[in-house]
Amino acid sequence: MNAVTTLHDDRLFPSDPTIRAIARRLYGAVRNLPIVSPHGHTEARWFAENQPFPNPTSLFIVPDHYVFRMLYSQGIAMEELGVGQAEMNADEARRIWIRFAESYFLFRGTPTRMWLDFAFQELFGLNERLCAANAGAYYDTISAKLASPAFRPRALYDQFNIEVLATTNSPLDPLTYHQAIRDSGWKARILPTFRPDAVVDPDFDGFRQNVQRLGEMHGEDCAAWPGYLRALRNARQRFQQLGCTATDHGHPTASTADLDPTAAAALFARVIAGHADAGEHELFRAQMLTEMARMSLEDGLVMQIHPGSRRNHNRQVFTRFGRDVGADIPMPTEYVHALQPLLERFGNEASLTIILFTLDESTYSRELAPLAGHYPCLRLGPPWWFYDSPEGMMRFRELTTETAGFYNTVGFNDDTRAFLSIPARHDVARRVDCAFLARLVAEHQLDEDEAVEVAHALAYELARKAYRL
Amino acid sequence: MNAVTTLHDDRLFPSDPTIRAIARRLYGAVRNLPIVSPHGHTEARWFAENQPFPNPTSLFIVPDHYVFRMLYSQGIAMEELGVGQAEMNADEARRIWIRFAESYFLFRGTPTRMWLDFAFQELFGLNERLCAANAGAYYDTISAKLASPAFRPRALYDQFNIEVLATTNSPLDPLTYHQAIRDSGWKARILPTFRPDAVVDPDFDGFRQNVQRLGEMHGEDCAAWPGYLRALRNARQRFQQLGCTATDHGHPTASTADLDPTAAAALFARVIAGHADAGEHELFRAQMLTEMARMSLEDGLVMQIHPGSRRNHNRQVFTRFGRDVGADIPMPTEYVHALQPLLERFGNEASLTIILFTLDESTYSRELAPLAGHYPCLRLGPPWWFYDSPEGMMRFRELTTETAGFYNTVGFNDDTRAFLSIPARHDVARRVDCAFLARLVAEHQLDEDEAVEVAHALAYELARKAYRL
Amino acid sequence: MNAVTTLHDDRLFPSDPTIRAIARRLYGAVRNLPIVSPHGHTEARWFAENQPFPNPTSLFIVPDHYVFRMLYSQGIAMEELGVGQAEMNADEARRIWIRFAESYFLFRGTPTRMWLDFAFQELFGLNERLCAANAGAYYDTISAKLASPAFRPRALYDQFNIEVLATTNSPLDPLTYHQAIRDSGWKARILPTFRPDAVVDPDFDGFRQNVQRLGEMHGEDCAAWPGYLRALRNARQRFQQLGCTATDHGHPTASTADLDPTAAAALFARVIAGHADAGEHELFRAQMLTEMARMSLEDGLVMQIHPGSRRNHNRQVFTRFGRDVGADIPMPTEYVHALQPLLERFGNEASLTIILFTLDESTYSRELAPLAGHYPCLRLGPPWWFYDSPEGMMRFRELTTETAGFYNTVGFNDDTRAFLSIPARHDVARRVDCAFLARLVAEHQLDEDEAVEVAHALAYELARKAYRL
Repeated sequence: MNAVTTLHDDRLFPSDPTIRAIARRLYGAVRNLPIVSPHGHTEARWFAENQPFPNPTSLFIVPDHYVFRMLYSQGIAMEELGVGQAEMNADEARRIWIRFAESYFLFRGTPTRMWLDFAFQELFGLNERLCAANAGAYYDTISAKLASPAFRPRALYDQFNIEVLATTNSPLDPLTYHQAIRDSGWKARILPTFRPDAVVDPDFDGFRQNVQRLGEMHGEDCAAWPGYLRALRNARQRFQQLGCTATDHGHPTASTADLDPTAAAALFARVIAGHADAGEHELFRAQMLTEMARMSLEDGLVMQIHPGSRRNHNRQVFTRFGRDVGADIPMPTEYVHALQPLLERFGNEASLTIILFTLDESTYSRELAPLAGHYPCLRLGPPWWFYDSPEGMMRFRELTTETAGFYNTVGFNDDTRAFLSIPARHDVARRVDCAFLARLVAEHQLDEDEAVEVAHALAYELARKAYRL
Repeated sequence: MNAVTTLHDDRLFPSDPTIRAIARRLYGAVRNLPIVSPHGHTEARWFAENQPFPNPTSLFIVPDHYVFRMLYSQGIAMEELGVGQAEMNADEARRIWIRFAESYFLFRGTPTRMWLDFAFQELFGLNERLCAANAGAYYDTISAKLASPAFRPRALYDQFNIEVLATTNSPLDPLTYHQAIRDSGWKARILPTFRPDAVVDPDFDGFRQNVQRLGEMHGEDCAAWPGYLRALRNARQRFQQLGCTATDHGHPTASTADLDPTAAAALFARVIAGHADAGEHELFRAQMLTEMARMSLEDGLVMQIHPGSRRNHNRQVFTRFGRDVGADIPMPTEYVHALQPLLERFGNEASLTIILFTLDESTYSRELAPLAGHYPCLRLGPPWWFYDSPEGMMRFRELTTETAGFYNTVGFNDDTRAFLSIPARHDVARRVDCAFLARLVAEHQLDEDEAVEVAHALAYELARKAYRL
Repeated sequence: MNAVTTLHDDRLFPSDPTIRAIARRLYGAVRNLPIVSPHGHTEARWFAENQPFPNPTSLFIVPDHYVFRMLYSQGIAMEELGVGQAEMNADEARRIWIRFAESYFLFRGTPTRMWLDFAFQELFGLNERLCAANAGAYYDTISAKLASPAFRPRALYDQFNIEVLATTNSPLDPLTYHQAIRDSGWKARILPTFRPDAVVDPDFDGFRQNVQRLGEMHGEDCAAWPGYLRALRNARQRFQQLGCTATDHGHPTASTADLDPTAAAALFARVIAGHADAGEHELFRAQMLTEMARMSLEDGLVMQIHPGSRRNHNRQVFTRFGRDVGADIPMPTEYVHALQPLLERFGNEASLTIILFTLDESTYSRELAPLAGHYPCLRLGPPWWFYDSPEGMMRFRELTTETAGFYNTVGFNDDTRAFLSIPARHDVARRVDCAFLARLVAEHQLDEDEAVEVAHALAYELARKAYRL
């Protein structure tokens, strides 16, 4: 029943021979470009400590919410998959892997299937489709390789041809591992990203203690607005000293505000005293985006805004397994009114870069492309999360290019905590962009020499430029 | 001017020769599978009485809102089409048919055209495209066949290779015809579906009398909450005794609530006394979805939720011609917050099945696929109503598969009161799904042996499994 | 680096050879049909005065917000592009052109690129792709031709094979230039369109003075509701005497209202006195749409509704450069509830025509097609503004045809103030419609003889019929 090989050289290229031939040529010009990964969730610790990954289950299943959310949706309990388990013995790990292999058909038509197949074949030399029958052999092969030096994090980083890799970090993170990587003399570029949700979102777990801690870290009195802002400025500088070029903001909505300093200080006072209501929390987050933009104008950090996720929708699952376990659901998201206050203040600053993301595809053509096709500070982030997929990427190009062009977009983000999927994800993005461009060439909307330039920009230059890398 | 034949064997398959060849092979493996029709609006009476259908006009035009809404939109009065007419003589019926044939070009590019052509050719042997010139001949041919034994409802049911056919019924329906079918010894599986809108939606015509009647039917005091709930439980059991496996809920929104029993009882008291306002009516519908889920956990009935239609938008047409005459218009529909209360209560129950439908395609990728790709109780119903069409089906797969996969969907629903269109509708669904899968195979995203399995599941197994048939 | 020729004969046709061959045949049947331009923003003055266009920069860059919004989004200041400049000397104009040519790559994948290439090649014989190297030669060639008699507005109008061209005019416009064209004896059909925003939208700049002026123009007392309505009726008649067949309404939303005459008069009194708040302004606009529909039933003018643009989103740019400079951003737009009051009053009138436009593509399949596929007065306008593009047009057909058919749409609008882009825009629309139809034919959903009829209707008849031209 299994195919001879899991990955075809022409995968994701349109079947039409004319388009496919052009896509192959375009892809040939970009497939081996270095990987620029300006936004993601890998851990600096892996590279600082350079320990082997423990086993296939802990690597591919337990930490990947794309994987276990699908299994859970089909009635397999989280516990049966090791989710939320501190320890896992060898038997358990193997049993979970077998269970996963039996259910591998559930991933048909999903990007997860493609990412996994890529890793299985390209990294582990496994050319037969995963199924119940070969699950044990798969497990053994992967386990053996993970124990070898070539599969340590640093070796993989080099093998993946990564030029730069950004992690995502709280302002409270001491960045010890980033420092350790620098100190080690290893010539890799692994940079922190400043993600201040924990200290700017009053609904974040432990917000008030977090703010107090931020003050302590920077010798500022965070009980008052000026000290709080100074502490944030200092924290950004601390990140910049370790190569950070960007901030990231994961708010429920894209709301921004532009209060006068007195009103902002009063709002902060209510919030930090714990007297603010839900509306004031939202207003405070909104104001903080504008404050971050103001600081970005000063220090040059690029802003990323990732709005629109209803986090922890399943309270029972959240209570038992915590955050980031597949129960975050997108919401309709509005940008035109939401961003207006920030844009009115700083929207015409060409030296500011704000990269917008969305989980609401209806905004691509309606709001995001028109905004990015006008304001000098705005750029469009690549298709995010559920849309980091062939169809999602194709829709993004189809829905944004005609209004925003290619050059108001910023190349690809893998945005992943699944380190081994990084090459696969960039490969999918390069293939889909080449497929899109090949159609434009075949339909005589673009000349092929132009398409080569655009493919190169989408695979490499635009990310470097937008993120100032 | 007319083509030699109306139906081509390769219809709906992409033109690219590679994809088309794969699509043909996939379709070849599913085209003759039995029809599983788990949700629709045919009438048990037809099969109980097994009388001939009266004439082409009464069969194809008068009851089909897809047909007459298009004609009405182009300025043809409802009265000229026999809509809302109790009686129709032979001359009138023929005249209306001619009028319809003259306007048949209006249906170019619509699924109605494809369904009708299928019935004309496959059932009536009419291979020439319908037009003014052949309208009379068409009428005569169809009329003659309708009078023959082979065109009685039961003979057609057998000819259509239907394995199971669900109707949609009010809890007040005595289900006499379903019983009569059983008693007749005819070996067909025609099952009722429990659609309680009339007794759970306070805005439904005659709601209070309906509830009282429900109580009388089941010997319960429906003036109070406990008796009302018992009556509903009993009604469900009565349906189950005649093979019912599912409920169906046609609410304006997807709102759910999870009130404590005291609050629910108090709300019911206000509602049944006629003292509730519009907001309380909405809250009551919301609570009743959760009550239905609770009962489904007990008795195993699958839930279907069909939200988002603004019924009877055209009041003048409603006043003159009643419900279901083509003036129902979709509204933006929200699921993430709306379903949260019910999901918080029962969302993690793997033994519960709730099938979600939508008239708002922007929710496919944003809300529905992420929800169904996480919660064990959720499945996605097929493209509904305006989207029961080639483009609509293709968009559904493109927008849901990457997040929810194929196995969180439930195959096809014809959802029709147009009995003769059932084979055509299932054929369209099978063709479009095969076309979608063929592209995945041609782009090396799926192996062909897998695509065969998926095509089979989409055409047959998933409907049986999801609806517990 | 430059291609031999910028325009390929098969541009915008799908690459698949079967579909492309059909598309070519369909396009061959419509490519040379006269242009019907029932809605746009060219100026009657150009044709009345028939002066040469000054230079390439003033023709192609300064007035075209599609062009300079893209350049501005990439950090080029408006001032560097001559926007908002009253005068421009030859050096400046040439320098701006060079700057534009250097940035021409930014337009890759946009319709602007296609429109410009069309004009460059078809009108000016420039077959080499515009770039920095040939910018000067381009400038000289275009300048020279613009000075020649063949490039005067009237000569171009004739060369473009325009059958009828509608402008857009305020009720305060004396229509002097339209009269002058008539008086000149030149046999062109250039008609005004009645766009009353300035006198029916209380938020319009100078609303109260505008209304007073309207009254003076027509000898009516516009301080009171009856005189105001009479003045509007008279103004419409004045437009009709110069050939006007349509009105146009550019409101923020699609809201309509149906107040009784007393309430309407009272609302007008508050509005005209300057005592109304934002909600009352919105209600007044809503009521005025219904008043316009009432007048249209009397005088036969077709209504166009263009809702959903957040005008002048960038206040700084608005303050410095005024309206229509690329900072208008679409908003989510709701039609089902918004249009209900007007439709309840006049929706079943087959002699009324209301053409709906949208900037919110999520409404195509959800709201607009179902509405137009039912109400006799409703038609769907073509893809508008950001969607006047190949992808936008294809989505429009894919999302509306199955429910509304082809015959509830109204052909193409170029909707442009860029006169030289008119042939290119109609050409794109004809190509994309033929590509869409060719796929339907190749997939055996439509016979080719039918597709020829539809292509003809979309390119020519439907616009004439819907706009009563």
